[in-house]
Amino acid sequence: MDMDLLTETVARIKGQDGAARSQAKERLDQLIMPHWALGRMMDLALDLAGICGSVHPAVKRKTIVVMAGDHGITEAGVSLFPKEVTVEMVRGFVNGFAGINVLAKQAGATVKIVDMGVAEDLGSMAEGGAIIDRKIAFGTANFADGPAMSRDQAIQALEAGIDVAQELAESTDIFGTGDMGIGNTSPSSAMVAAFCRLPVAEVVGRGTGLDDAQLENKIAILEKALELNHPDPADPIDVLAKVGGFEIAGIAGLILGAAAAAKPIVIDGFISTAGALLAARLSPKSKEYMIAAHRSVEKGQVAALADLGKEPLLDLQFRLGEGTGAAVAMNLVDGAVAILTEMATFSEAAVSEAK
Amino acid sequence: MDMDLLTETVARIKGQDGAARSQAKERLDQLIMPHWALGRMMDLALDLAGICGSVHPAVKRKTIVVMAGDHGITEAGVSLFPKEVTVEMVRGFVNGFAGINVLAKQAGATVKIVDMGVAEDLGSMAEGGAIIDRKIAFGTANFADGPAMSRDQAIQALEAGIDVAQELAESTDIFGTGDMGIGNTSPSSAMVAAFCRLPVAEVVGRGTGLDDAQLENKIAILEKALELNHPDPADPIDVLAKVGGFEIAGIAGLILGAAAAAKPIVIDGFISTAGALLAARLSPKSKEYMIAAHRSVEKGQVAALADLGKEPLLDLQFRLGEGTGAAVAMNLVDGAVAILTEMATFSEAAVSEAK
Repeated sequence: MDMDLLTETVARIKGQDGAARSQAKERLDQLIMPHWALGRMMDLALDLAGICGSVHPAVKRKTIVVMAGDHGITEAGVSLFPKEVTVEMVRGFVNGFAGINVLAKQAGATVKIVDMGVAEDLGSMAEGGAIIDRKIAFGTANFADGPAMSRDQAIQALEAGIDVAQELAESTDIFGTGDMGIGNTSPSSAMVAAFCRLPVAEVVGRGTGLDDAQLENKIAILEKALELNHPDPADPIDVLAKVGGFEIAGIAGLILGAAAAAKPIVIDGFISTAGALLAARLSPKSKEYMIAAHRSVEKGQVAALADLGKEPLLDLQFRLGEGTGAAVAMNLVDGAVAILTEMATFSEAAVSEAK
Repeated sequence: MDMDLLTETVARIKGQDGAARSQAKERLDQLIMPHWALGRMMDLALDLAGICGSVHPAVKRKTIVVMAGDHGITEAGVSLFPKEVTVEMVRGFVNGFAGINVLAKQAGATVKIVDMGVAEDLGSMAEGGAIIDRKIAFGTANFADGPAMSRDQAIQALEAGIDVAQELAESTDIFGTGDMGIGNTSPSSAMVAAFCRLPVAEVVGRGTGLDDAQLENKIAILEKALELNHPDPADPIDVLAKVGGFEIAGIAGLILGAAAAAKPIVIDGFISTAGALLAARLSPKSKEYMIAAHRSVEKGQVAALADLGKEPLLDLQFRLGEGTGAAVAMNLVDGAVAILTEMATFSEAAVSEAK
């Protein structure tokens, strides 16, 4: 496996357009209201202008990409739900009645589901075009016993995410990330612990609802797994291969692909933020394209967001994933663009300014 | 002026429907996701079911009512903007290019503007039907020198708000509150200080952007005004008459009217929360119909929200008013209803539950 697509994609990520950002700032400074009185939605408008390179940033065609994969670490008993739920939920997404379906619909977003590494054959669903098949393997290996995947698979998974971004970029103005994978708070926590050089206990949460004893167990398993695998924080692909997941790689690849195409990408909760951290390690400039949607209940996200320098827009006590937080945040994106493009300035409206 | 409409309206406020709330809870508990994994939007869905008395709460027809009024206290120099801006902004609302217009449009909400007491004659705008004329007077008196309004005017203003709610209730599923009135953080702070028995300095903020010296001045003016007027916290109408405002009374009346019609009402920022506090003092049960939209930059809102027992949905560093926070929160209302009514349960979807 060569690194061509990955290397080339990273090289294409330029960062925000300073001129468009300045132009947007100038307009926002003059809108008919006390200065910057719509606070964070104006900050968001600035970012959208910088990312899209326009004071009329396009955000109409919204695509939330739900990356799905399974995790060998579930064998160690880190999750309340059986692994089979991953494929059951993927079926739920296809049928349209899961959380992400209804919240994406509310926000005017399309949902695309990608099989990055679900442990069952989704052939029948993939054939109908309901899901995009980029399966790397039937789930990762149990990283309590050794690496989650090979280095080649890690690169392959990242490139699959990039590829999906490229494929969807033509019909997408703004991306959102999402995830499905029973057990995936474990690799996410392990990745954040490795990248941020933090003790496991500081970045592990209750996932789908562990009690105190189960949480202690999860921490112990991840501590041992990190000791065993010893991922190198300076080598992002090593971290991914040793303690990551296929859907997390897919999210990171999607972010890099979106950034290379100069499209904004709304980052969902903890799993997506772990993917964003991986993307940022591969391309620090990719951070300029990321919009942090919401603060997850999972505490590991705090460290990851701080590392990325991002403050999430929402705090609604979500802990679902799937892209649900990204979907809700899409409403704020629309609002931010409306502020930038539809409000009048003081002079346009002939309204008296502050003394 | 008799108190018939006010008394009768308060008597009609029944509180949430416990049966519909329980039914909604039962369904939400079984949706295909870890328990309550969409956190605050599920709490919101419960409230909407309880308020509307249905597990299919209607929220489609959204009306944000912007109450406008002027304030004699501006003569004391409490605001950066001249009083004339109130009418200029009302004209902006009518023309459709202010913050509330664009954010309401994004959220699918209609904006109604009510002249509760603007200091100019808005006859020409009122004639076209662009604004609802409920003018009590050409602005309040300067409450640094005596009461802001008479007790009769206070009741009249509350009843005007109730009347507007009744008039709009037929074409409205869910209300939002909004305000416009240069100087209106001053009466709002004074009301919150009086109702919550707090020192003025704890509930006064920078309004449209005061510097430190101007803030100190505002605090001193309000301290003196409260000492002079000595409003009785146990008599809500006394507090309103002595240190309130016409648009704040209109907001309180609107809330009471919405509650009496069993419609949810989304409470905007600081001025609206002061109005909500007044409504709650007149009818504690009216709190059950209120949805707190966002945390304002104005610090007086903290005390008012705590008194109401409400945690706002959003914190976007808004300090504009107009109903802008309520408009953004309407998106979350739609999402909450979608979760309640469109997601499948575990048994409907045949997805395995937690072990």
